[in-house]
Amino acid sequence: MSELFFAGLDVGGTTMKGGVVDDTGRMLSAINLPTEPQRGQDFGLERMCETIRQGVREAGLAMDRIAAIGVATPGLMDIPAGIIIDPPNLRPWRNVPVKSHVAQVFGLPTAFQNDANAAAYGEYCFGAGKGCHSMVLFTLGTGIGGGIILGDRVLEGAHSHGGEVGHIKVELTHPRPCGCGLFGCLEAYASANSVVKRMQELLVEDATPCSLRGRAEFTSRDIFDAATSDKLAAKIVEQTAYYLGIGAMNLMHIIDPEMIVFAGGMVHAGDGFLERIKHHVRELAFPIPATRTEIRYARLGSDAGLIGAAACGRQLYHRLNGAG
Amino acid sequence: MSELFFAGLDVGGTTMKGGVVDDTGRMLSAINLPTEPQRGQDFGLERMCETIRQGVREAGLAMDRIAAIGVATPGLMDIPAGIIIDPPNLRPWRNVPVKSHVAQVFGLPTAFQNDANAAAYGEYCFGAGKGCHSMVLFTLGTGIGGGIILGDRVLEGAHSHGGEVGHIKVELTHPRPCGCGLFGCLEAYASANSVVKRMQELLVEDATPCSLRGRAEFTSRDIFDAATSDKLAAKIVEQTAYYLGIGAMNLMHIIDPEMIVFAGGMVHAGDGFLERIKHHVRELAFPIPATRTEIRYARLGSDAGLIGAAACGRQLYHRLNGAG
Repeated sequence: MSELFFAGLDVGGTTMKGGVVDDTGRMLSAINLPTEPQRGQDFGLERMCETIRQGVREAGLAMDRIAAIGVATPGLMDIPAGIIIDPPNLRPWRNVPVKSHVAQVFGLPTAFQNDANAAAYGEYCFGAGKGCHSMVLFTLGTGIGGGIILGDRVLEGAHSHGGEVGHIKVELTHPRPCGCGLFGCLEAYASANSVVKRMQELLVEDATPCSLRGRAEFTSRDIFDAATSDKLAAKIVEQTAYYLGIGAMNLMHIIDPEMIVFAGGMVHAGDGFLERIKHHVRELAFPIPATRTEIRYARLGSDAGLIGAAACGRQLYHRLNGAG
Repeated sequence: MSELFFAGLDVGGTTMKGGVVDDTGRMLSAINLPTEPQRGQDFGLERMCETIRQGVREAGLAMDRIAAIGVATPGLMDIPAGIIIDPPNLRPWRNVPVKSHVAQVFGLPTAFQNDANAAAYGEYCFGAGKGCHSMVLFTLGTGIGGGIILGDRVLEGAHSHGGEVGHIKVELTHPRPCGCGLFGCLEAYASANSVVKRMQELLVEDATPCSLRGRAEFTSRDIFDAATSDKLAAKIVEQTAYYLGIGAMNLMHIIDPEMIVFAGGMVHAGDGFLERIKHHVRELAFPIPATRTEIRYARLGSDAGLIGAAACGRQLYHRLNGAG
């Protein structure tokens, strides 16, 4: 009996990451190459294939041991068609036929997915969500990404816009501008960037002494670190837990998943922060989902995209072979 | 070849409605009996069976011509278990085993569903959503109910709380109290009741002449009627279109359905009002879903619950018989 191996590729604006994951979700290898989008999309497609090749080699495998490939990319895309349409982080790429190219080069079943959806699917299959049947992931970074998994399927949406959980409008009266160009999105309140922005504003409004005052730059990590001893930082962190509680509540009332998972840098804030999110969810949501929905941190860290991409390849393989 | 017939039952707080729907969604009969929840749940279960019997008789059919039954009820429930847990509109009922009782009495495959979900499924199968693959329904009444259909499945949620589309929190700064006990829900802005409440408040705030001023009571219908010639009423109607645009936008960014359908009394406001909702969606949502998502009014009117309940029975029948 030969073991099954899947190649994953997670394409980002700066680097792309390739590697091999086995049928149980174990990651055998992971290598990075620079994306260099400015060199154009033909170069980009070749770089993708090269990253997959090097990832497979790094795992000590020949290419013919790979059962299927999964590719995850950011940006506006047509998921079923396997095309990146107009990716803000991969300029000047446009209408790049990723799936068909990779499938043709390697002659292997190739899955294509949005990177945030792939990360959610990775956590669902092999991370925090292992064993559950429905899950919503919030990834807290520069923005808020995420994905929704219902019964082993990524909720891609009819126009590849499913699971844009950072772009629920949560404020009408004084909506904060969001990185997406809209106003009042959850992302404008609870992303790492928004945490920093809110802290900067609070330092202007409130003269209470604060260790971050006068610093030319600080990160959301600095704010979370300062919050243990610093009143203003603690206030921002508590508000952030409240905003994330609202994000969770909204998804609980729409999707009502078995589990909600938070990923990204804020995970390092530890159990106390997660407890505050849970506290707000209990105050905000309907009693049954508030009591029964599992809320936890992600487990795969920055490998979620790669593992999730490979898991999408794995799902495709098992479907083609009648086991999914 | 014998035609297929399905019995539907839509249980409300005041009346229950029973009837027969055929395999193409045509309603052959519909009769109403009073629910009289105060007479207790044993009476209620018997009344449900009697309503089904009378509905079938009204269609000119014998009970043995019915292929399956579908029952839709309001209230807190466990959908897979087929139990109404604690329905606010059906006091003092508690933990009523609806599905097993009806199935046992008639010896027929019996589906059980939340009434708002059933209405959504009815519109999906045989109404506004016919032919589409994913749909979100907003039902605008006393509150805002709704349902989500993804690929011929009702999104029930892990705890039977999926599709509570009226209870997305859309306001943080000055959240209006919602009928559900929470604050800032979409329902608190855009339900028929909330439209009346906002109109009453505006009449206090703004002294502009208004045909509704001084009237002891008026309905949301009166406000929509007045809006053609009355500035204040027109302002409330326009705000309502904006709030519904936000509801649509939020669901487009989470579910990204092929179609969004609005049902309930506001449908009578006509195409102009729907155009205003669409206008706000174009301003509020991401360009691709904003351009491509079909937004329309429901088509089944107050029969949606009954037809949807029967459609749930039909779905169960076809699944049991290998065609779904």
